[in-house]
Order: sequence, then C-alpha cells, then structure tokens
Amino acid sequence: MAQYPNELLTLIAYLKKLPGVGTKTAERFAFYLLDWQKKDLTEFSAKLATLQEKIYPCTTCGCLKDATSCAFCDPVKRDQTVLCLVSSPRDVYAIEETRAFKGIYHVIGGLLSPLEGRSISDEAIDKLLSRFEKNPIKETIIALDSTLEGDATALFIKKKLEEHGMATTRLAFGLPMGSSLDFVDYGTLEKAFTGRRDF
Amino acid sequence: MAQYPNELLTLIAYLKKLPGVGTKTAERFAFYLLDWQKKDLTEFSAKLATLQEKIYPCTTCGCLKDATSCAFCDPVKRDQTVLCLVSSPRDVYAIEETRAFKGIYHVIGGLLSPLEGRSISDEAIDKLLSRFEKNPIKETIIALDSTLEGDATALFIKKKLEEHGMATTRLAFGLPMGSSLDFVDYGTLEKAFTGRRDF
Repeated sequence: MAQYPNELLTLIAYLKKLPGVGTKTAERFAFYLLDWQKKDLTEFSAKLATLQEKIYPCTTCGCLKDATSCAFCDPVKRDQTVLCLVSSPRDVYAIEETRAFKGIYHVIGGLLSPLEGRSISDEAIDKLLSRFEKNPIKETIIALDSTLEGDATALFIKKKLEEHGMATTRLAFGLPMGSSLDFVDYGTLEKAFTGRRDF
Repeated sequence: MAQYPNELLTLIAYLKKLPGVGTKTAERFAFYLLDWQKKDLTEFSAKLATLQEKIYPCTTCGCLKDATSCAFCDPVKRDQTVLCLVSSPRDVYAIEETRAFKGIYHVIGGLLSPLEGRSISDEAIDKLLSRFEKNPIKETIIALDSTLEGDATALFIKKKLEEHGMATTRLAFGLPMGSSLDFVDYGTLEKAFTGRRDF
C-alpha cells in the first residue's frame, strides 16, 4: 500500500489541527496547495510565519491589534462609561458588526468550565477590576455565550463585580430573528416568555 | 464598524482559496491559527513554503514523488504490463488503498471539458503513447471519474489508443457496496442491469 510522501503527511497532520478538518478534508487541502501558484504559496506561508508577531492582543482590553494603537481603546471614539465583557477577541468583531455598541471591550480570554478544569484566574479578575479604576465605567454588559459554561462564567463575574459595587447587565435571551415558534427549542421559548416586554 | 487587522484580512483571503472554505470558515481558521503554539505555526509555514520543491510529479508517470525514486515506476515491484490511467495524482492513492492493482500508473493531469474549454493536449497524448514504447504494456485500464467530463475523456483516449492498436478496459459501473436499490439513482441501476455478471 502506497503512502503519501513524508512531507505531504506532515502537512496533512498540520492541516488536521484546523477546526472541523478531518483526514479527508486535510488531504483535499494538501492536494490543492500542491497546485497553488508558487507566488501565492510563498506569500501564504510568510503570512503564517509572522502572524503572531504582527497581530497580538491589546494589553489593556485584550482585543486584537496590529502595530497601530488599539482601535477599541480609543478614548475619543469609544464611550468609556460602558464596558462589554466578552470571552474571545472574535466576539468583538461580531458585536461590532451589529453597530449597536459604542463602548469599550474587555476580553476575559476563556470560559469557566469545572468539567474541563478551567477556571477564571485571579489575575484575570484583577485585570478586569483595574479597568474600573482607569475608566469611568457605569455599566458592564456581560456578553458571553448562552451555554452552560457561558452562564456559569456570567454568574461568577456578576458576583465578583457586585462585591465591588459595579452594576452588570446581560444580553437578552429570546427568539432569534426570523424564527418560527414551532422550531424554537423549549428553553429558548421559556426565556422568551419570562423575558416578555411592552412594545 | 471595526475591521480585522490587515494582516488577518490577507490571511483570511488566502484561507478562502482552499476548497470548500468560505468567509466564516476562513475566519474561524485564522482565529485558531492565532492561538496555535509558535513552534507549530513556524513549522507549518515552513512546510508550506517548501511544499512544491519537496514534492513534485514524477516525469515519467506523473505520480507524486519526493527526492527518492518514484515508487510507482519501480520495475521490480510494479507489473509493467498493465497501465492504469488516472486524471490526478490523488486518484493513485485511492486506488492503492484497494490493493487491487499492482501495475503502473499514468496521470493525464486533467479531464477534457469542452464547456470550460479544456482539452487533452497533443503533448499529453504523446507522453502517454511514449509509455507503450518503454514498457511492455498489454492492457490499459481507464480509471476516470464517472462524470460527463470523465466519460468524454475516457472515450477520447480509448479512440487514440485504439488507433495505435492498444487494448483498453474501463472500471465497472454498478451498485456501490452497501447500497439499497431504492436509494440508487436510475442511471446507476441501468448500468448495473446492462453490466450484470454470472456469479
């Protein structure tokens, strides 16, 4: 039985580390890459090699930044009185797309998960609390996933912030836009009922 | 509206060139790559940079090889009297997995497609015919996709080979293993009927 050349096997192994990529897809990617133009492949590989030097988390808020100053910490353009707490830098871009938020962000960098032995470190909490010393924050919006880990983390942080007298809010739960009632799960429907509003 | 840093945008553009990868998946890949260990990222990028130098098609059969001699041309291990014609180096590995074929391969490197203006070049045919001068080939198995392009290419090559007095066979059409009759398309079922065999 013939095997792929070793170099190809190693490349496939690396491609399999990408999320949702199994052996078949990795093989497909590898064969495509073999057919790419030399110029593209060189450029792509160079971008990968310098990726983590050129893009890194802002030391203040944890959002991604390049060599320029952090666009999300900008004291002129961003409202310094509202802080939005997210779990990863990626969530920031999703929220920015909505154009519904003009405040500042804080990335906590991971959710609490007792099952997987992950907790929110004291340093992460100290770093979050230091934001309140430097900015006149009046409201903290907790924008975490609506999963078990997200809920646990939200409650944990709410408690920590309340101990220090900070007001917190959370994103609303309810029907997703464009959904029909009979396809919505019962948990969501229940949240939509209990959270009903005047209109 | 915030945009990803430029370096990330370029990386996402390259990732989108991979087959079946759209914007969302490319973004997901890019954020994962940001979190990879530095060592892995460097190694992955180095593998990509040298990929096409280290793995290239064998000048005789067109199968992939590295710096060592082509495993598929080996005059001792491979039966030089049966030639299997495939469209891409990738097909070779699929056929090898079956362990049903011990002969030599020839990669024609693309299918004929009048709609997309692709044809089989005279050079490709000359190169194929030159295999018959160098090897005592008695049978040529045409192993191309069972698609419109695959069929057209198979007929075209069969004609060319017959002009030079070479015998050709084709892979059997019929029911895929483990299929139930009512889920098989009519085209396949018809081929399975007309191609029925004693057993």
